[in-house]
Amino acid sequence: MKALSPTDSAFLWMETRNQPMHVAGLNIYTPPPGAGPDFIPKMLEAWGQHIRAQSPFNLRPVLRMGMWHWQEDKDFELDYHLRHVALPQPGRIRELLAMVSRVHGNLLDRNRPLWEAYVIEGLPGGRFATYIKMHHALVDGVSGARMMASALAHTATEQKPPLWAQTYGRAPGARPSKAAPGLVEQFQNAVLAGRQILPGIASGLWDVVRPVTTQDWAALPFQAPPTPFNVEISGSRRFASQSYPIARLKAIGHAAQATINDVTLAICAGALREYLITQNKLPAKPLVAMVPVSLHGETTEGGNQVSLLLANLATHMADPRKRLKRIVQSTAQAKQRLMEMPRLQKMAHGMSSISPMGPGMVTGTAKKHPPFNLVISNVPGPKESLYMNGAHLDEVYPVSIPTHYLALNITISGYRDTLGFGYIACRRSVPALQRMLDYTDNAIRELESALGLSSVPVAASAPASKAPTKKRRTT
Amino acid sequence: MKALSPTDSAFLWMETRNQPMHVAGLNIYTPPPGAGPDFIPKMLEAWGQHIRAQSPFNLRPVLRMGMWHWQEDKDFELDYHLRHVALPQPGRIRELLAMVSRVHGNLLDRNRPLWEAYVIEGLPGGRFATYIKMHHALVDGVSGARMMASALAHTATEQKPPLWAQTYGRAPGARPSKAAPGLVEQFQNAVLAGRQILPGIASGLWDVVRPVTTQDWAALPFQAPPTPFNVEISGSRRFASQSYPIARLKAIGHAAQATINDVTLAICAGALREYLITQNKLPAKPLVAMVPVSLHGETTEGGNQVSLLLANLATHMADPRKRLKRIVQSTAQAKQRLMEMPRLQKMAHGMSSISPMGPGMVTGTAKKHPPFNLVISNVPGPKESLYMNGAHLDEVYPVSIPTHYLALNITISGYRDTLGFGYIACRRSVPALQRMLDYTDNAIRELESALGLSSVPVAASAPASKAPTKKRRTT
Repeated sequence: MKALSPTDSAFLWMETRNQPMHVAGLNIYTPPPGAGPDFIPKMLEAWGQHIRAQSPFNLRPVLRMGMWHWQEDKDFELDYHLRHVALPQPGRIRELLAMVSRVHGNLLDRNRPLWEAYVIEGLPGGRFATYIKMHHALVDGVSGARMMASALAHTATEQKPPLWAQTYGRAPGARPSKAAPGLVEQFQNAVLAGRQILPGIASGLWDVVRPVTTQDWAALPFQAPPTPFNVEISGSRRFASQSYPIARLKAIGHAAQATINDVTLAICAGALREYLITQNKLPAKPLVAMVPVSLHGETTEGGNQVSLLLANLATHMADPRKRLKRIVQSTAQAKQRLMEMPRLQKMAHGMSSISPMGPGMVTGTAKKHPPFNLVISNVPGPKESLYMNGAHLDEVYPVSIPTHYLALNITISGYRDTLGFGYIACRRSVPALQRMLDYTDNAIRELESALGLSSVPVAASAPASKAPTKKRRTT
Repeated sequence: MKALSPTDSAFLWMETRNQPMHVAGLNIYTPPPGAGPDFIPKMLEAWGQHIRAQSPFNLRPVLRMGMWHWQEDKDFELDYHLRHVALPQPGRIRELLAMVSRVHGNLLDRNRPLWEAYVIEGLPGGRFATYIKMHHALVDGVSGARMMASALAHTATEQKPPLWAQTYGRAPGARPSKAAPGLVEQFQNAVLAGRQILPGIASGLWDVVRPVTTQDWAALPFQAPPTPFNVEISGSRRFASQSYPIARLKAIGHAAQATINDVTLAICAGALREYLITQNKLPAKPLVAMVPVSLHGETTEGGNQVSLLLANLATHMADPRKRLKRIVQSTAQAKQRLMEMPRLQKMAHGMSSISPMGPGMVTGTAKKHPPFNLVISNVPGPKESLYMNGAHLDEVYPVSIPTHYLALNITISGYRDTLGFGYIACRRSVPALQRMLDYTDNAIRELESALGLSSVPVAASAPASKAPTKKRRTT
């Protein structure tokens, strides 16, 4: 029995029915050529032989003396965790997203290892999906995505055991942690986790982005305007997703001398601006996004390669080209500061590891003075095709965590030559999330048009992805 | 905004993730002759026009000054409550029960009116199911079943609005309650609800069934033996169901001079005995069931017609005929006592109205000295065929509430000329619930054989129920 780190424990302590703390991945597959209607039942039957789970898929949380520990589930029951479901007719992406929206709002059962895997049949053309959900106390978004990818095969012929039956180089259940603290210290840690983390966020962010010059393009924490996204959330969710060829975004970046990250931010900014205008709620001040960023290759600093920055999304500017330029200035300035402050990187790293959650602990004042308006994450993904039992992985979408005062989360995941945008939101606070898909399309076209680029979609090469730029509707 | 009664509030206060407090009904339908594949989408589209919900389907619970109130949900969103899903292939009852097992373990969202309705397609032959879930704070099992039945039509041609758009003679949201108590009193009520109810149960039950003669066949509270059913439960569920022609059970009752209620108890007793023997956990002492009973027609007392009794299930006796006889003696004695104690009827009625929950509040001592081992309810149902948009209602199964120390609940619901047995249990505490279906079959055959009756199944007349005595498997 292993004690959880205070940070991991915090995900359990702070979880409520309105703020579940699990992350998930939605994958869409095409069965191998010649696969019959029994492809999925056969696959599930084969998987069903793997009735033992490896760490962390065999670990359940137990509370002892006021501290959370991981304990092996001696009564592990695969049937509970592995769920075979189907979409109602006509089984469009719309029905798939409706199902994911619903399932993502349900709490995981703490009496069992904190994961659920759904195999979802009924997409047109025999395609199927998996939706795999894990608690954030067990795995963070990035390592969860890596684990799911590493569980897949690199060829159509290679057969691998199912996700829970494999062992992982760096088991997420064994996240690096300090030597176990003493009993009293642990107890204090657990009880105080929220308070310990919260001031860290506030003061740390403040230091990271405090203006050092009067020429200030960067976003400031607690200067973000109030928006409909910065409210207390309900327990229900809406999920929408869509993917685009990286080449299309690269063309924009090339024309505007912007990184892919900046282009994705500009696309989100354009979509958010249109969304807020139609809701008649566009603030006069620009929205501020919290963006976990990889500094690898952009800094000579050793140590932690991941940090975060606050990006000014320039949503107050109508001109898409100027908006992108302002975003580039904002992130460049923020990165410059990060590089000048190595002491703070570690701090920021600590923050980024709890990013989806820390802000949820912000007090009610966050409504009027949100530290930032939303989280936009770019999760790196595999570049090569992956396979599961011979089925080709076509599309990958992350499903992240909305929290109180951060009702909308946009997580973007790379796979092969596409980027999948996953929008997850509190269903009540963000009532028209599906429109964000149209607005995202519009934002891309708007940028292409402003930069004199052709808006003709660049075809993605995912073989089974029939129409890579086609909209994916939500429910 | 209307304050909840302390009893109704208690269902909210005492609810945990391991002990959700909702009841549900699983109905199976056959579409009308000639219905096309668009029957369900068309029905849902028509239902989708009814975007306003009537009481209690528009009420969400809010906590004000430490008290629960019902408040109209101004942001009522039908899409959230009405859910269209499908069964994976081959879409057997097995897949249906797996889905119900899973969905029944999920908490309702307290930010919204406390109900969810699933329309489940994909059963063989175009049949479909509805699973409708409501919180016990809003409706009790019996009135929930009545409401669902009253929402349906009596002919294939009659069209009624969907469940949430109808008004009900005696709205369950407006359960009779006393004049609103003062603020302080309400607060005390809410905080003390658990403690107030608990002693009532214990002392009330004790009085109701305390032996008045030395010839004691009746069950005694807190004399029930410890069983695997009397443990703390997890949050996951398993549901199994099966139906039998009433005529078959009546034949047993006629041969043994027993009521239908006694026969159903004897069937459950036989099944429970076999289950516990195969688990190597049959106690030497007989199991005790808590049974809500209708006294209507059996007593000349006015007033409340519903009470409860403790039934000695005689699971220690191997002879099915003797077992049934002992059960008849036990319930007869218990009813006799109820009739002699009109003062206690009211008390007992109060208890029965909170029956699925009160025992869950029993302290840890219930593990070694359970007041009784399980609840077996017989819910009256409609005698005539019912229809929904022309689709014939074939089968009706109640899905009730397991609680801590009562991990298994058997609720039996009548419809037309059949009885549907619904077994709901904590998935962990009752790991082999599906076997109860075989054991139930065995118990019926065993009784028929012992009483010299033919075991040839009497066909039920539900037109679309292809094989009324065929086993329904769980997952």
